[in-house]
Amino acid sequence: MSGNGIGILFRLTTFGESHGPALGGVVEGCPAGLPLVESDLQRDLDRRRPGTSRFTTGRREPDQVRILSGVFQGVTTGTPIGLMIENTDQRSRDYSEIQDLFRPGHADYVYWRKYGIRDYRGGGRASARETALRVAGGAIARKLLAAVGVEIRGALIAMGPERIDRNQWDWEEVGRNPFFSPDAAAVSRFELLIDTVRAAGDSVGATVEVVASGVGVGWGEPVFDRLDADLAKALMSINAVKGVEIGDGMEMARGRGSMLADEMLPAPDGEVTFVSNHAGGILGGLSTGQEIVARLALKPTSSIRIPKRTVDVHGNPRQVITEGRHDPCVGIRAVPVAEAMMALTLADHWLRHRSRQGWKP
Amino acid sequence: MSGNGIGILFRLTTFGESHGPALGGVVEGCPAGLPLVESDLQRDLDRRRPGTSRFTTGRREPDQVRILSGVFQGVTTGTPIGLMIENTDQRSRDYSEIQDLFRPGHADYVYWRKYGIRDYRGGGRASARETALRVAGGAIARKLLAAVGVEIRGALIAMGPERIDRNQWDWEEVGRNPFFSPDAAAVSRFELLIDTVRAAGDSVGATVEVVASGVGVGWGEPVFDRLDADLAKALMSINAVKGVEIGDGMEMARGRGSMLADEMLPAPDGEVTFVSNHAGGILGGLSTGQEIVARLALKPTSSIRIPKRTVDVHGNPRQVITEGRHDPCVGIRAVPVAEAMMALTLADHWLRHRSRQGWKP
Amino acid sequence: MSGNGIGILFRLTTFGESHGPALGGVVEGCPAGLPLVESDLQRDLDRRRPGTSRFTTGRREPDQVRILSGVFQGVTTGTPIGLMIENTDQRSRDYSEIQDLFRPGHADYVYWRKYGIRDYRGGGRASARETALRVAGGAIARKLLAAVGVEIRGALIAMGPERIDRNQWDWEEVGRNPFFSPDAAAVSRFELLIDTVRAAGDSVGATVEVVASGVGVGWGEPVFDRLDADLAKALMSINAVKGVEIGDGMEMARGRGSMLADEMLPAPDGEVTFVSNHAGGILGGLSTGQEIVARLALKPTSSIRIPKRTVDVHGNPRQVITEGRHDPCVGIRAVPVAEAMMALTLADHWLRHRSRQGWKP
Amino acid sequence: MSGNGIGILFRLTTFGESHGPALGGVVEGCPAGLPLVESDLQRDLDRRRPGTSRFTTGRREPDQVRILSGVFQGVTTGTPIGLMIENTDQRSRDYSEIQDLFRPGHADYVYWRKYGIRDYRGGGRASARETALRVAGGAIARKLLAAVGVEIRGALIAMGPERIDRNQWDWEEVGRNPFFSPDAAAVSRFELLIDTVRAAGDSVGATVEVVASGVGVGWGEPVFDRLDADLAKALMSINAVKGVEIGDGMEMARGRGSMLADEMLPAPDGEVTFVSNHAGGILGGLSTGQEIVARLALKPTSSIRIPKRTVDVHGNPRQVITEGRHDPCVGIRAVPVAEAMMALTLADHWLRHRSRQGWKP
Repeated sequence: MSGNGIGILFRLTTFGESHGPALGGVVEGCPAGLPLVESDLQRDLDRRRPGTSRFTTGRREPDQVRILSGVFQGVTTGTPIGLMIENTDQRSRDYSEIQDLFRPGHADYVYWRKYGIRDYRGGGRASARETALRVAGGAIARKLLAAVGVEIRGALIAMGPERIDRNQWDWEEVGRNPFFSPDAAAVSRFELLIDTVRAAGDSVGATVEVVASGVGVGWGEPVFDRLDADLAKALMSINAVKGVEIGDGMEMARGRGSMLADEMLPAPDGEVTFVSNHAGGILGGLSTGQEIVARLALKPTSSIRIPKRTVDVHGNPRQVITEGRHDPCVGIRAVPVAEAMMALTLADHWLRHRSRQGWKP
Repeated sequence: MSGNGIGILFRLTTFGESHGPALGGVVEGCPAGLPLVESDLQRDLDRRRPGTSRFTTGRREPDQVRILSGVFQGVTTGTPIGLMIENTDQRSRDYSEIQDLFRPGHADYVYWRKYGIRDYRGGGRASARETALRVAGGAIARKLLAAVGVEIRGALIAMGPERIDRNQWDWEEVGRNPFFSPDAAAVSRFELLIDTVRAAGDSVGATVEVVASGVGVGWGEPVFDRLDADLAKALMSINAVKGVEIGDGMEMARGRGSMLADEMLPAPDGEVTFVSNHAGGILGGLSTGQEIVARLALKPTSSIRIPKRTVDVHGNPRQVITEGRHDPCVGIRAVPVAEAMMALTLADHWLRHRSRQGWKP
Repeated sequence: MSGNGIGILFRLTTFGESHGPALGGVVEGCPAGLPLVESDLQRDLDRRRPGTSRFTTGRREPDQVRILSGVFQGVTTGTPIGLMIENTDQRSRDYSEIQDLFRPGHADYVYWRKYGIRDYRGGGRASARETALRVAGGAIARKLLAAVGVEIRGALIAMGPERIDRNQWDWEEVGRNPFFSPDAAAVSRFELLIDTVRAAGDSVGATVEVVASGVGVGWGEPVFDRLDADLAKALMSINAVKGVEIGDGMEMARGRGSMLADEMLPAPDGEVTFVSNHAGGILGGLSTGQEIVARLALKPTSSIRIPKRTVDVHGNPRQVITEGRHDPCVGIRAVPVAEAMMALTLADHWLRHRSRQGWKP
Repeated sequence: MSGNGIGILFRLTTFGESHGPALGGVVEGCPAGLPLVESDLQRDLDRRRPGTSRFTTGRREPDQVRILSGVFQGVTTGTPIGLMIENTDQRSRDYSEIQDLFRPGHADYVYWRKYGIRDYRGGGRASARETALRVAGGAIARKLLAAVGVEIRGALIAMGPERIDRNQWDWEEVGRNPFFSPDAAAVSRFELLIDTVRAAGDSVGATVEVVASGVGVGWGEPVFDRLDADLAKALMSINAVKGVEIGDGMEMARGRGSMLADEMLPAPDGEVTFVSNHAGGILGGLSTGQEIVARLALKPTSSIRIPKRTVDVHGNPRQVITEGRHDPCVGIRAVPVAEAMMALTLADHWLRHRSRQGWKP
């Protein structure tokens, strides 16, 4: 409850900063009996890992995760799962240039003001590197959810002004290109854009969509821990995210009720079929049984080679450019992170829902 | 932690449904010594109250709040503040028509599936009536924040396709028209739209903006309880909200880093001046000292008089229209609710930040 | 999490002080479908109520509880249950005598130091009156537990130097005497003691035992939310409690492992039979399926008519005696309160345990 | 909130079992700026470490703790502090003997029933080895508290029937003998007792007292998170603890109010002096400014070489003796653990109290 953990029954707590000895995390609440090996986590970590294509940062972090507890003979024991990733690429850079400079759009100024400490090496705790542990923890949540029939997938749907064509959406395509684009035709446009942006020493924003299918009806805990509210928190807590939408999202403000109500029909199995899914699978904060659809907007990173006005720790006016290995579009690697945050949120709500479900006095 | 409370140190817990004997709430964590009387809460409740103009529902709920504890001789004592609003307008309606019908876009289907109970009277716990207590609790948070120099204001900035002109923004205007519009010129357009929508038996969505000024630097608890993450949760937990943005929000995904970094200059008082506020006053999840700007999109209510396909509790296909007294645009009355949720979030984070601030070993 | 609530999934939050308009509470997490009427709560409240015998305080508080929400047509709906007890006996006493005096052994000095407020009317929030809401909330937990086969009973086992004879323990007897004594023969000794104590203007301590039967195996969440740890917190949070024991308790420190290990035998039903229950039904923080046995020691109240040295708010040395209607032994009325706290703890742990139970990947 | 963490603002989460690769923990909420090095933690770990005298288990666990994050240039940064202790002494024992046997008085039966998993190697998560992380985390809390003038000390005051003489209490003596005895004269009696017990293949219980001095007035959050309630939970969560007392504890049930009220006198500095401390420094759940005194009773461990009846996983009746390296009195090593739990509780309550303190509207 001090800010480094998320979830009530299925809970991830993380620690570690970009340039310390290691990052780590604790996953609590995973039921016993789930088969789990390190490669289950590594798969997702590798998708998030920098240095896998020329479109992301050139840093090479193997991000090798170790499971330190909570698994015995290949199966979870119900006790907390300790995770650790050693920081191996703490390149002994020369930080003297930026040691006393605040970078506009970065967290270093506000961290300095909050904590009175200036950790000038990389982003410290505010570094995107912290999200590696979210991906590792999320992979456990994802495996648990898979066992109850829930699948979570994410895709990049826009980068700067370029958008995918939703009619060309192909989930299979997402794994085939370095952008997580579900539209094969958009890939060359994304390539061109990112090459242009990089050449200019600039950066660009992106929009990510995450979808969960197979979620049962009624997950979510009114009135504050609604499923959409907890999803919004989880997704907004990702670095650089500035907006979160469920279903038709911000667009619903423009519409009429007569066009946006998701009508219901009887289904052959006695269940209900919804004619549409403008609500993104959540009504009154509870899952409807439809696909849960969320979108998040990521701002362009402020780590650019174009000079910007700033101040130093002494209050002097300065200019700064950020040299080094940086993603021109942090939104790309945010796809597995967003999936992880959705998985963590759903695993927690599955357990919370389950605690009272199927009981009759 | 069962979903009916929000906040860690400053916490609101609510109870009550639209047609029960009363709604109520508990505000925990308000420091002792704050002057507080019921009229402090009533002011905001009256702004949210239905029946105040022809543009909202015709129901007349006086929403008279009682303070049951936590205040002695006009001042808070540091103990929990109990709040209650009796339900006086439980009109003994005939519900036989809709008693076994699910209304598309409403929470009744999912509540029935989750709880196995069909409370057919109004919206039950999912009713917007529950937000009255948020406004009451938020008024306490607001008064506390005012004492530390923080002011929170909200406005309606769009209704359906109609938007205000940001260049005409006048906070004074917000209190003068029934739409909470900050742009006097937009009022007649909002009037025309809502009259049209109501005549058609339809409803329309809206966008609300809330702004906090006077927040210090460094509020927020990384990495999950970031200020923006907790704001996103608080705002998304409001009925009908489908999207939340901070600062430039979803638009930031389209832009370049060179245009969106908020540059810093030295300020005369030794502090820092930001040249712009694309980030909406939050970096790395911490407040920057600038205005905190959030926006929320509300879907049009599904309570419309246009027939929609649905099912009944027996699984039969049916048609439904929602007669009765309903807001054609629930977004209007959401303005004080959004202010309340921002106030609650900031009061909690002020205390959390304060717990470690100003201490030297 | 601000201190006025207890429980994670089944949670009680209370508000109210002894001399305010009302006390109230919110019970979250009760599953839907449980039959519940106000008289279910009133039964336990009446057992705790003062003025029922000459052995407790002469104050007459009807303690009439109202259910304000969460129940529809006599059955819980799964939404929070709001509770309220109006304070009707706020006798307009003259407090001028003690208005600026701190009473030794009372909370008024520390409340004044913590909150900077002096609520001189009765005990304020620290009054035993607050426990009425615990009993009301506990009655809901108790009814829920009864539906899963758990019964909770309490008894007074000692008052000052007088103790019951455990060999004469008869649960039926508890309801027949005003001391909740399970030993009929002890009643006259308790009567004599309390008459003596009252005549002397003094007070006396007591020991209470609470027992839960029918609890399944494995309730409790290691390593910090062990069932015994949460019970210890719940019981120690009752006014005047200074010690909590599980099973043989403090006595186990004197013994040898060879005498205190609870041996196991196969049971006819394939389960296990324990030969003894020194551990009080909890091992490693988890329930064993045996009876859960806890004891609590209550100090004698400091509200006595024997003069004691103290200070006033101005720091002057003074003498104080506490006139008025006070229990000479607060431990008597603590019996239903202790039962309530055990019920709240077990209901919470039942849900927490249940959230992961019976699931196979 | 899944049971592996304790504290709201200052929070320790632990993971790891006795025979996994490592144990670890996360300390959240430590303010920035506190000087901290690994040897600060090691000092307390070494006091808890087995194998340091012939009176504790012969296992040799170096218990070398690593700080993985949250410290930069020898000072805390305000971000979470990751801790790890590798398990080096996982002696490849032959467990075939006890692999399917439940040991009476151990947690293995209830863990098996709760989780459906049988981790037969040592105690798994229920092993006392888990307390190493409590000591490490508690050392950070202790250092923080020391910076605000709070000192925490513990002592063994009884072992089986042998007790110290409180008139001979000397805190200096505690560090000089392997029993943490504050009474030099009791040491030879403790030695004799433990040699006798070990020779008999038996075990013996113990009583530990922990005392905090320098705590300010008013720490604690009524009515459920009272300081004594949270202390009771923290101490009862230690392995083998069966009873917790504050101040005069269980004895207060025997006494009269006239003898047990702690009278107050004016102090020269304008503060208050208490004439006695029967209440153990806590009234109404808040600290009084006096010494906080708590006692805990530890049962004798069930790991004994005297045969006991039990069952195996197949439900057959069996006999078991526990060979191997076990403490005949686990209470000895519980002293630093109890200190750690008190330090963690007080650090949390210091921050919680501080969040609202010293503020005037």
